Amino acid sequence: MADSSDRGSMPPPPTIHNAQPDDMIRIMLATDNHIGYLERDPIRGQDSINTFREILQLAVKHDVDFILLAGDLFHENRPSRGCLYQVMALLREYTMGDKPVQVELLSDPEEGKAEGYSFPAINYEDPNFNVGIPVFSIHGNHDDPQGAGAEGALCALDVLSVSGLLNYMGKFDLPIADAEAQTTGIAIRPVLLRKGSTHLGLYGVGNVKDQRMHFELRSNRVRMYMPKDKDEWFNILLIHQNRVKHGPQESVPEGMFDDSVDLVVWGHEHDCRIIPEPVAGKQYFITQPGSSVATSLADGESLEKHVALLTIQNKEFDLMPIPLRTVRPFVLEDIDLAEVHEEEGLDLKDQMEITKFLKARVNALIDKANELWDERNAKAVAEGEEELEPMLPLIRLKVDTTGVSEMSNPIRFGQEFQGRIANPRDVLVFHRSKKASKTSKVAIDQPELSIDDPNLSISEKLSKVRVQTLVKEYLAAQELQLLGETGMSDAIQMFVEKDDTHAIQSHVAASLKSLMKGVQTSEDVDEDELDDALAKAKEDQDRIYAEKQKAGKMAKSKGKGKAKDVESEVASEDSMAMDIDAMASDFEEPDSDEPAPKKTAGKKKAAAPAKKAPAKGRGKKAAVLTDSDSDDIVEIGDDDDDEPPKAKRTNRAAVLSSTTAAKKAPAKKKAAASSSKQATLSFAPSGRTSTRAAATKAKGKMAVDLSD
Amino acid sequence: MADSSDRGSMPPPPTIHNAQPDDMIRIMLATDNHIGYLERDPIRGQDSINTFREILQLAVKHDVDFILLAGDLFHENRPSRGCLYQVMALLREYTMGDKPVQVELLSDPEEGKAEGYSFPAINYEDPNFNVGIPVFSIHGNHDDPQGAGAEGALCALDVLSVSGLLNYMGKFDLPIADAEAQTTGIAIRPVLLRKGSTHLGLYGVGNVKDQRMHFELRSNRVRMYMPKDKDEWFNILLIHQNRVKHGPQESVPEGMFDDSVDLVVWGHEHDCRIIPEPVAGKQYFITQPGSSVATSLADGESLEKHVALLTIQNKEFDLMPIPLRTVRPFVLEDIDLAEVHEEEGLDLKDQMEITKFLKARVNALIDKANELWDERNAKAVAEGEEELEPMLPLIRLKVDTTGVSEMSNPIRFGQEFQGRIANPRDVLVFHRSKKASKTSKVAIDQPELSIDDPNLSISEKLSKVRVQTLVKEYLAAQELQLLGETGMSDAIQMFVEKDDTHAIQSHVAASLKSLMKGVQTSEDVDEDELDDALAKAKEDQDRIYAEKQKAGKMAKSKGKGKAKDVESEVASEDSMAMDIDAMASDFEEPDSDEPAPKKTAGKKKAAAPAKKAPAKGRGKKAAVLTDSDSDDIVEIGDDDDDEPPKAKRTNRAAVLSSTTAAKKAPAKKKAAASSSKQATLSFAPSGRTSTRAAATKAKGKMAVDLSD
Repeated sequence: MADSSDRGSMPPPPTIHNAQPDDMIRIMLATDNHIGYLERDPIRGQDSINTFREILQLAVKHDVDFILLAGDLFHENRPSRGCLYQVMALLREYTMGDKPVQVELLSDPEEGKAEGYSFPAINYEDPNFNVGIPVFSIHGNHDDPQGAGAEGALCALDVLSVSGLLNYMGKFDLPIADAEAQTTGIAIRPVLLRKGSTHLGLYGVGNVKDQRMHFELRSNRVRMYMPKDKDEWFNILLIHQNRVKHGPQESVPEGMFDDSVDLVVWGHEHDCRIIPEPVAGKQYFITQPGSSVATSLADGESLEKHVALLTIQNKEFDLMPIPLRTVRPFVLEDIDLAEVHEEEGLDLKDQMEITKFLKARVNALIDKANELWDERNAKAVAEGEEELEPMLPLIRLKVDTTGVSEMSNPIRFGQEFQGRIANPRDVLVFHRSKKASKTSKVAIDQPELSIDDPNLSISEKLSKVRVQTLVKEYLAAQELQLLGETGMSDAIQMFVEKDDTHAIQSHVAASLKSLMKGVQTSEDVDEDELDDALAKAKEDQDRIYAEKQKAGKMAKSKGKGKAKDVESEVASEDSMAMDIDAMASDFEEPDSDEPAPKKTAGKKKAAAPAKKAPAKGRGKKAAVLTDSDSDDIVEIGDDDDDEPPKAKRTNRAAVLSSTTAAKKAPAKKKAAASSSKQATLSFAPSGRTSTRAAATKAKGKMAVDLSD
Repeated sequence: MADSSDRGSMPPPPTIHNAQPDDMIRIMLATDNHIGYLERDPIRGQDSINTFREILQLAVKHDVDFILLAGDLFHENRPSRGCLYQVMALLREYTMGDKPVQVELLSDPEEGKAEGYSFPAINYEDPNFNVGIPVFSIHGNHDDPQGAGAEGALCALDVLSVSGLLNYMGKFDLPIADAEAQTTGIAIRPVLLRKGSTHLGLYGVGNVKDQRMHFELRSNRVRMYMPKDKDEWFNILLIHQNRVKHGPQESVPEGMFDDSVDLVVWGHEHDCRIIPEPVAGKQYFITQPGSSVATSLADGESLEKHVALLTIQNKEFDLMPIPLRTVRPFVLEDIDLAEVHEEEGLDLKDQMEITKFLKARVNALIDKANELWDERNAKAVAEGEEELEPMLPLIRLKVDTTGVSEMSNPIRFGQEFQGRIANPRDVLVFHRSKKASKTSKVAIDQPELSIDDPNLSISEKLSKVRVQTLVKEYLAAQELQLLGETGMSDAIQMFVEKDDTHAIQSHVAASLKSLMKGVQTSEDVDEDELDDALAKAKEDQDRIYAEKQKAGKMAKSKGKGKAKDVESEVASEDSMAMDIDAMASDFEEPDSDEPAPKKTAGKKKAAAPAKKAPAKGRGKKAAVLTDSDSDDIVEIGDDDDDEPPKAKRTNRAAVLSSTTAAKKAPAKKKAAASSSKQATLSFAPSGRTSTRAAATKAKGKMAVDLSD
């Protein structure tokens, strides 16, 4: 069950006292299904999809009113065709059907619908679809909206949504690079449902960078458009953010949400903590379903995985964890060889003996895992479930090798366990440390690990460290003459991390536009002065990019000049909430327990921050939202594939190769840099000519959201 | 209208004589919509989608029973998220609805359905979908099935099909690399429909390499599973192949189809030839709707584009071309400067004068194009249509510069026409030749051009030539020690052409498996002998790959030994048709006017060549099917994007960069080769260990389809 051991003084979880089936809304609650995780692994390739199937079957079995997912349905931002195909097939198989949907939609079914089309956003409102169990989901950090077509940034959930198989909610954001889109915090428009006397508001907020969420919350800019009688409603807030602190502002505090919220469903964190936990000084509870597949071999993932059956009746609710039976048993152990030496006299100089010792431990872990499986299986069978075929377990042995001079090859070590465990390649990880005292405590809460994490094998670390540092080194080596390194680094990151094949191109085009503008304003440039003009334009451009990034995160800061660095901590609170529009006359302005924002003078209905305002060709940066300090490259690969680092995504490998080349030749830096620049990023002359006209049109656009 | 000028002695097109609305099946016929073509072009980006919308609107307007598409719905094998989203939205908007579907499905609705799921393959048979106008489509060469997940090779149409928005037909093929899949030609299972007294059979064959199709036809191995009373049916065959000869066997002859066919709908060729054309010695007619968007600026694309309203009543039919109004007017002209010099005294040494002359010609073409637009628009308005906003035209001036020493920059030339034409970047193309006499005749029939084509601008040619030759040069430079160049070249091509990011990895894994096997059989290899063993294994592997490729195309050739080269021309005819199963007792064996195959002894129902037999991890090569001669690299980029060669698909650019690097250093070949090998294709050690076990399992599998 959920890890409630260290939460001793918790009040008893809430329940429903006088059950009235006609008023009860039953919800299958799940999250972080990470479909496609290790999809090419011959053993584990189908794990994520199998468990997702189990979840859908559980939804049918428990006769729920709908399914609620809290993000990261897909592991890859651009899921493979196979993943998309399978998810669509499963949704069609299990969620379409004759079962009447008993939850009445009270909010506008058009809210968030595909622009220019007549069908509604909520699939069961479309008379052409026979939906039995609607699925609602927000996006996570893995499957967030990317790219910028005519429809703005899209994510995989948009594709499911437009096909009528899923209801995508919580896409609140406007592309920050669009000058028209005045960034005004986060606006949450709920899906409002009713069954009998129970009124339910679903408030979804798809993942954004934790720093931004933190800031928006602190600045009271997270606006929930609630019905006037909001306290008559049961209000669920869905978020997908870090709950565990990773650094200053790198998580979202539990106690900053609106008082009208009754239950926070917390996605992103992979350990299962379904039993609702109260928050000091707040009315609401938090439930954290955890992932349905282990995407790292950390402690938190070894807890038994569950989904939850959430039942709501008026203002009361009940959460019942349901164990997932298709999840591989996973056990792990920490071993300090020095300790074993002290206690059991293990010879730290004898590699053979160490290997023998470690094999014995792995064998013990395998036995333990198989017992765990049998136990769970027997329990389910006793409850009338069918017996399942055993699955190979996941085993992880973390070995502190401090004081040991040489260790054998962990991959060769694992080969012995082929056919007995699901992860022979990375059963063993070594680390050295003074004392790995803090390990287990931190690891429990870290589904998405940093490079320093001892749970990562060396190859895992390597695969991470390379991208982060080499992008930096590569860019430094380029001595970029026209393009700012800051934006370029973000663009490369988008390319690597999100498979956004146009990120670099778009950035270059935008940069050139801005450069052209700079050069054009200094009229009649002499050939000799061109370098100066370019240098100045580049400087301007770097500054503007940095400011735009800040502006997106922090919003326009009233009265600050163009060139002045806006520090996130000092963003003035009184500049907020200037152009918010009320959702409809039925709804009042959002409020919160923090200092209230200025009310707008007149409530306009038009031009409310629309979900899908087209942002042709420029919305890309919306999703980046990185820190604007150029040396603060945001973590790449924060999500710990245990996949071996062979050329899994070939374009990633290709980027690395260029980078490696640049690194290898620091002496002849300039020559190498210029040739590889030409090779990998061959855009300069052609891009330039085509953007000239556009640059003229775009004049004066770049600074709009800074000049107010 | 269609280009029927050089087909003088054609009989009058067929018509329906005694129209009975209740027996008439009305079909909207279109093909080669190439959605996503130039999707990032600021002017033309939405062209393909806008015309697809127009086609759907025409289907609604003309109240058709269904829509029939003949391939290349998508331009990219992996359409962008935006494309997929828009196509899904459009299909949902226009093809779902209350209009009753009046064509009754007589064939098995389960035929070709997603394996393991209960919903039918044909969307309007699914009670959970309210389909108004079913859409049927085969795949083309652009959107053919690729990759190999648990579900076998998938294409974008599979995704549309599983979402219930489209009915994908004509996916006949089994992965040839799968030893279980005995390649036995092409089996076409029809969609059988009825309305009133009219019985309609739709026989779809998705694109395969022309050489294969040619061979299968000649060998009488294209099997149409027809009802016993086939001649009572109106039988439509849909294909997507070259119709115009590009080389020996590089097209499909018009006269080789079954005599029971009444109408061949020919996709792939982009010029519009809707008026049915008879075929010498055959009963059937051919109609070629042509593409709905110009993907090259060749003559054939300048014909006015149409879709067709096909009406069928019993054995009679009628084809009515309907002009597409959202297609840009496109005019082109050939100019020979030497001729102009002779006739008008143009000074071939005066660049300014030449430029001035060419600008005048372009201006004349613009006027002509705009007149064309006005004319078409006026005609439509006269027929009661609404007036459309004018569109910028496509203009192409092909200039023979023979005898001219220097020409100005065609891109700078085009800038002058910004805002007046849709393609300022490539309005001008230069070529030099003895005499461009054959140009216009050939170009009409060449929607997909080769490198030699004078219609291509220099940059277009460059972008093509690079991939073709550089892959070869790159591989040659590698001195690959373990991997065969033949298969590697195909794998790289898959990566570049189809964005198949796993192609290289899969090939390497498969090669290593086969290598391991070779090395393992020569037991207890001495360290010194390892090189020999590897060399031998590599040789074997190259040979096996070549044979497998042949085998896939030509099927197993009875009695031929493992090592013997099977020549395509001599594949023995009597080895065919050994394991074909009849579709159902209602159907007889396929026949044809060519020598009949041996009948099978007993008609088994089980184990018929299933459409979607899973081919875990090895099906990849199915789609390659290239010629097995290693130096005969198949044409890359056969489809002529007019897109400028800036880094459009960044991973393509990355591959090129490595290749370029390898090319630049021919002197230090070995060093460069080994370092770039490591950088771009870093798989060797890790891949090896993981495949050892698998190799054991796979033993004896590689040669199965050769040994029979």
